[in-house]
Amino acid sequence: MMPLRMPLPHPVTTRFFSVQDVAAVIQQMGLPHVFERLAETIRTDYLRWNDFEKCARVANHSRDGVIELMPISDAKTYAFKYVNGHPKNTQGGLPCVMAFGVLADVATGIPEFLSELTLSTALRTAAMSVVAAQALARPDSRCMALIGNGAQSEFQALAFHYLLGITELRLFDTDPRATEKLMANLAHTPLRLTVCASVREAVRGADIVTTVTADKTNATVLTPDMLAPGMHINGVGGDCPGKTELHPDVLRASSVFVEYEPQTRIEGDLQHLPADFAVTELWQLLSGQAPGRVNAQQITLFDSVGFALQDYSVLRFMRDAAQALGLGQPIQLIPELVNPKDLFVLLQAEPHATATPMNKTPQPTAHHTQFKKVTLVA
Amino acid sequence: MMPLRMPLPHPVTTRFFSVQDVAAVIQQMGLPHVFERLAETIRTDYLRWNDFEKCARVANHSRDGVIELMPISDAKTYAFKYVNGHPKNTQGGLPCVMAFGVLADVATGIPEFLSELTLSTALRTAAMSVVAAQALARPDSRCMALIGNGAQSEFQALAFHYLLGITELRLFDTDPRATEKLMANLAHTPLRLTVCASVREAVRGADIVTTVTADKTNATVLTPDMLAPGMHINGVGGDCPGKTELHPDVLRASSVFVEYEPQTRIEGDLQHLPADFAVTELWQLLSGQAPGRVNAQQITLFDSVGFALQDYSVLRFMRDAAQALGLGQPIQLIPELVNPKDLFVLLQAEPHATATPMNKTPQPTAHHTQFKKVTLVA
Repeated sequence: MMPLRMPLPHPVTTRFFSVQDVAAVIQQMGLPHVFERLAETIRTDYLRWNDFEKCARVANHSRDGVIELMPISDAKTYAFKYVNGHPKNTQGGLPCVMAFGVLADVATGIPEFLSELTLSTALRTAAMSVVAAQALARPDSRCMALIGNGAQSEFQALAFHYLLGITELRLFDTDPRATEKLMANLAHTPLRLTVCASVREAVRGADIVTTVTADKTNATVLTPDMLAPGMHINGVGGDCPGKTELHPDVLRASSVFVEYEPQTRIEGDLQHLPADFAVTELWQLLSGQAPGRVNAQQITLFDSVGFALQDYSVLRFMRDAAQALGLGQPIQLIPELVNPKDLFVLLQAEPHATATPMNKTPQPTAHHTQFKKVTLVA
Repeated sequence: MMPLRMPLPHPVTTRFFSVQDVAAVIQQMGLPHVFERLAETIRTDYLRWNDFEKCARVANHSRDGVIELMPISDAKTYAFKYVNGHPKNTQGGLPCVMAFGVLADVATGIPEFLSELTLSTALRTAAMSVVAAQALARPDSRCMALIGNGAQSEFQALAFHYLLGITELRLFDTDPRATEKLMANLAHTPLRLTVCASVREAVRGADIVTTVTADKTNATVLTPDMLAPGMHINGVGGDCPGKTELHPDVLRASSVFVEYEPQTRIEGDLQHLPADFAVTELWQLLSGQAPGRVNAQQITLFDSVGFALQDYSVLRFMRDAAQALGLGQPIQLIPELVNPKDLFVLLQAEPHATATPMNKTPQPTAHHTQFKKVTLVA
């Protein structure tokens, strides 16, 4: 049993990691190294698949979008992500996808690390695509079609360039300005960029086809007549009920790989296929329990929807980077109590010493705040 | 369609509301007024019950505790709470229950308000108990037994004092130091406090019995032989599978009221009763669709587990208070982009202008950060 008054409260400061902090990690470590380490982190975590308590994400749907919570935990660490999907947001100058998440200690429930995950989701999605492609694409793949040139496209392009040796991109987007933006952002890389007039033209001759479109419709961006033997399809944009990209016959013509089958059956392009259509979970592939590509003619397909385990991976990667680089900001999300059974004492603190007025420079809150005992007159 | 370069990014700053900010709201508004306004907010939201998309909370269980996510939304606003329950935490100097949560805009998905919810959960739980008791307890109730004198107990005591006219408390806890702490915290209120040697003694003569114990066991704190006609039982601590407080016959002897039936059947003291045991949801009671107390002899029971709607209520109460009092701190949780399809531009910002080194006074991030275009050499 604990004494009534402990000498010092248990530290329960949460480290807040902003958009700028994640950008700083990339600038200090370099994007190639970040992708490499992140892919390795994801692979390591997928090899521990059975250690995790998993569930399909919890979605609140509205007319124009969806807001989702994605929890996952092993015996030591709990993670969750908040993420929205609002395809019309760009019309109002906002990203379609915004996210943040938390790492917590399973033993105590303390939320230790609170991070932006918009930028991080783009990183982990691309790293996950590469992890799948390393096992599924033909090793001699050099040319990738990139259908959808929005917010995630540069990350897919560079992850495949750095980690898989892609040297040529064939680009298509229904919005030519999106393609122009991608061209400008990748102009100073060694990637050879070809703008195409249609999906069909972009796909022609590609070893890998990455679809990363945003419309919340049952689109058929890719049809079976566009397929060629030996292709690997990296289907990223079909990730929500009613939001798909691939003709069902594209899946029927392919060996299909998924992150977490129960979730992909609801959210992936797989949603249009019968419940007994066979798929393989990536962890089985990565652990050698299931074969990946078996010959150079086979068409392989990664029906990516984004699973909580990748967010767990990117959160622990960023937490470690934050520690190594000394980045982040302490916030008082959880009270520090001298006596854990005395929450009421918080009301007896002097207000001016503790509250942060909006629009003023906030005070650091990492120190162990000692609340002064002042009598509350009821 | 939006132009490629917009003149100014859409503001996507999230307001962070710390433990100290919530304490400041209470200090500035006064606890009686906070309880009054909060009870009114909860009542208003419960009268809009059918406007909400609801689900039972999502729980990840571990040996010593549980971590839960509680989402809820109406057409305009989405809310969720992160909350843990670790009864052994106090042994290590930590609270059993820690929480935080977010209010987001359903139309865009922007997380607008990120707040501590440990202190706020204590407030909203007590306010919810009072809202139920106002409809269920005998109007002449003056004496309340308070079984469990931990972190939430003072909040229950004072909410019932301020809003329901309770003047006398009969106290019991297996840890006498918890009762001592409660006595000290309430010494300067007009409440008459009596320390009792057992639950049985505390309950004797009480009009209302509030149980708010923390053990993660199937306890039987209250047995049917302790009941008296006309009692109202406010059962707060039984809120998790395997964590109950009441003998099943206590429920059988009572008219039982719950927040959200599907969740309470899993988590409440109700978990020990058959699926067809009749209960009434509070919103039916508050809207006049179901009767509350029908006579002075009836025993009524609120099997409280804590539902997401109360967190929605306390979050919007705190958001409005934050605005009115000018409290909180802007944080860059979501990127502000000149072109919403250009997330990659964030990697091209100068690191020193944007990152926040840990342990240094953080810079305010509310202004619309203009990221400088710098070429990334791949």
